[in-house]
Amino acid sequence: LENLASALAGVVGGDQVFAEAEIGDRYRIDFTRKYASRPAFLVRPATAEEVAGVVKVAAERGVPVTVVGGQTSTVGGAVPADGGIALSLERMNRIMEIDPVSMTMTVDAGCLLQNVQDAAEGAGMLLPLDLGSRGSATIGGVIGTNAGGNRVLRWGMTRDMVIGLEAVLADGSIVSSLTKMLKDNAGYNWKHLLIGSEGTLGVVVRAVLRLRPLPTSRQTALLAINTFEECALILRRLEQAMSGRLSSFELMWEEFYTRMTEGQLPDRPRPLPLGHAYYALVEAMGCDRESDEAQFERALEELLGEGLVQNAVIAQSDREREALWAVREDMMRGIETMRPLAGYDISMSLSDMPAFVEMARSNITAVYPHAKITFYGHAGDGNLHALVGVGAIDAQIVHQLDTCVFDAVRAVNGSISAEHGIGTSRAPFMSWSRTPEELRLMQLLKNALDPGNILNRGKMLDAWAAAGKPG
Amino acid sequence: LENLASALAGVVGGDQVFAEAEIGDRYRIDFTRKYASRPAFLVRPATAEEVAGVVKVAAERGVPVTVVGGQTSTVGGAVPADGGIALSLERMNRIMEIDPVSMTMTVDAGCLLQNVQDAAEGAGMLLPLDLGSRGSATIGGVIGTNAGGNRVLRWGMTRDMVIGLEAVLADGSIVSSLTKMLKDNAGYNWKHLLIGSEGTLGVVVRAVLRLRPLPTSRQTALLAINTFEECALILRRLEQAMSGRLSSFELMWEEFYTRMTEGQLPDRPRPLPLGHAYYALVEAMGCDRESDEAQFERALEELLGEGLVQNAVIAQSDREREALWAVREDMMRGIETMRPLAGYDISMSLSDMPAFVEMARSNITAVYPHAKITFYGHAGDGNLHALVGVGAIDAQIVHQLDTCVFDAVRAVNGSISAEHGIGTSRAPFMSWSRTPEELRLMQLLKNALDPGNILNRGKMLDAWAAAGKPG
Repeated sequence: LENLASALAGVVGGDQVFAEAEIGDRYRIDFTRKYASRPAFLVRPATAEEVAGVVKVAAERGVPVTVVGGQTSTVGGAVPADGGIALSLERMNRIMEIDPVSMTMTVDAGCLLQNVQDAAEGAGMLLPLDLGSRGSATIGGVIGTNAGGNRVLRWGMTRDMVIGLEAVLADGSIVSSLTKMLKDNAGYNWKHLLIGSEGTLGVVVRAVLRLRPLPTSRQTALLAINTFEECALILRRLEQAMSGRLSSFELMWEEFYTRMTEGQLPDRPRPLPLGHAYYALVEAMGCDRESDEAQFERALEELLGEGLVQNAVIAQSDREREALWAVREDMMRGIETMRPLAGYDISMSLSDMPAFVEMARSNITAVYPHAKITFYGHAGDGNLHALVGVGAIDAQIVHQLDTCVFDAVRAVNGSISAEHGIGTSRAPFMSWSRTPEELRLMQLLKNALDPGNILNRGKMLDAWAAAGKPG
Repeated sequence: LENLASALAGVVGGDQVFAEAEIGDRYRIDFTRKYASRPAFLVRPATAEEVAGVVKVAAERGVPVTVVGGQTSTVGGAVPADGGIALSLERMNRIMEIDPVSMTMTVDAGCLLQNVQDAAEGAGMLLPLDLGSRGSATIGGVIGTNAGGNRVLRWGMTRDMVIGLEAVLADGSIVSSLTKMLKDNAGYNWKHLLIGSEGTLGVVVRAVLRLRPLPTSRQTALLAINTFEECALILRRLEQAMSGRLSSFELMWEEFYTRMTEGQLPDRPRPLPLGHAYYALVEAMGCDRESDEAQFERALEELLGEGLVQNAVIAQSDREREALWAVREDMMRGIETMRPLAGYDISMSLSDMPAFVEMARSNITAVYPHAKITFYGHAGDGNLHALVGVGAIDAQIVHQLDTCVFDAVRAVNGSISAEHGIGTSRAPFMSWSRTPEELRLMQLLKNALDPGNILNRGKMLDAWAAAGKPG
């Protein structure tokens, strides 16, 4: 250990190496507080070269290295390995360049997402990636996990916004392609392999992000709908009517809507009456306010006129818009009565969603007849969230519920993780959405890129192997 | 050979194995007619399992396998290896499903792009990928090369349209993820590694493609512009004004425009007078004709009013639209006087384009003072095409011109191949746009996935190694 400490100090300086007892909780416990660990050292490099030096030291000794960012993983993907090195890039937090001609920004991996969003907006552009944890999540983290969010329908996931990337591989080499080009077919696209690999194939240190014109208008509405088939049709009709401006289509099943609007504050009444099977929060953005608003209203009027939409409310102010979004997002208030609960982030073909929901419900209630189950999510992207409360929670209950939900996911050829990744908690179920051949290919890539298995050891494929590779 | 023939016949049936003498030119000579080869066998499997069987037979014997599609590669990437197996997927050409709810289609790799486009349109949806070779290029080919085209600005490249993929790896295993999900973070995204790998990492056999709402309106205009800075500003202003509807921004340097409009047919007059440094062909698509047209005209009027655009013509009919596009695309007429010529497909940051053009011109004229040089391309994506004619052409001249152009590309940190790939002809210059660490990583991936080097042997990294890995 002493030898390791001095080797690390040789790379980053003694004042940036912290021994186990000195490591703060925020580096070793994640925000769910379900995952915690005891890394031997915390190291805070200042440059890509220092990161490479740390990885080399670790590789020589076979010591695991885990990048610690905002610790906002919901699946136990972010806490360091016991006895390993926690690598914090918090000192690498520069916004290096904003280029209004190429519409790109070049940023360090340690930047907070919110700061990057704000800087883009300050320069009159939009970084479309947005998620609830924007104030803690780092750029390295959102790239490492290919984060999604509320606007994937229009602008894609994180990988769709990463134009250039610089990363440190397990052998300590720095692969760098910090270009600003939308098109580059000069060889294999290694960038996409690292994005979403949850820190198991390389350490992201810098990125060039694609920016978009900053929208100047925003239309938000809540719709009441009676059948899922109508939901899907309305989604497609709105995409068409809005010529690509539709940025969110968030679907709430009746039970979710009911819970989220129960006991509303006096100044925040329930926006639409109960009694419909679905509620959809839709949002479009554009740069031509008058025409955008007219288009949005016309589209909704048509859907109402045809009887596809049963009822609708359009936000008339930012305050009203926030109130509508709170119905979808203000989890802390809305689902209190369901706690303790298990949450899921799954995806499937839109056409399979009703069958999935029915199957998942029936699987769960067969085991827990009184379970409280509710569904909501980014339906426009095929991404569903599910919350299940059965009055108590422990590892066995979680495993039972996981099996109920993921069995239904498997039956519709869906994904056990739409945007949250595999981490630790989803690992036992990897073979529910991946074939043996796919898993073999993933393991082959991991072995090739990280033969010593030092990068984020214990997560994803490792955790799957540890769970006995079930399936 | 006889042993190989009977092994192949055992997989696909004797009537689908053709010996060297029976193999038609379209399988072994590409459309440039610069690349030709003598494969030992042509094999035409009917299923993914047969493809896997063929690859296994080849792997056991160390015989190279090259998928032969439309042979539309411009860089010598598509002709089979001498003495190897040419694998044609022409019998695998089913459009398996069009799903209007998920807005996806599932197709065999042997389908022609045009047929897939037509089928999507027949179902009321758009496959945005479009390129000149649509009538010959196959789906496997456009995925293998990550093809681009005229609408990347809005809808991305081929990889952005591939949701699900099925491929045969070099060990004969079939990796299949024919899902319809926009979001899937369950493990490494191996799909993106295969897309654009030019058939060197796997054989694409099927794909699920993302469709979009079919636009019902289209606005096209040609603009005359005086400076490059104004071009860039106009691009960004139009993207903003059109709220994401801008689908093409094709830039033509004066010399290109002049050549392309010389000796126009009487019924096709030059759309705008000569004398401006740049001409931009811009196009937007939408689903709300009246409002789309008004928005487009308003945006152009503003740019004209501010003096950013010097002159403009808006197409008033499909016939006029075709005439405008012909100025950009009807190469056969427009550049006759420059032949023989060398062509380039490069990309760079938009802000670096003027410096690149100046440098490339100066590099070329230093060697060939009377060279005819012209630039045009998908500037909205940072993708430039260059044509150079020096009166004669041979391998030495091509190499000299390549060096002049790619030296300038390297100076601006650009890509030697924006959308055409590496193939054979670009391979000696891979290190002009890739670092040694990137190339090492690519070779590592190739070795891991295809240790016997049987897939499209002789192309990309192989050809780079054969050229002595210069740089």
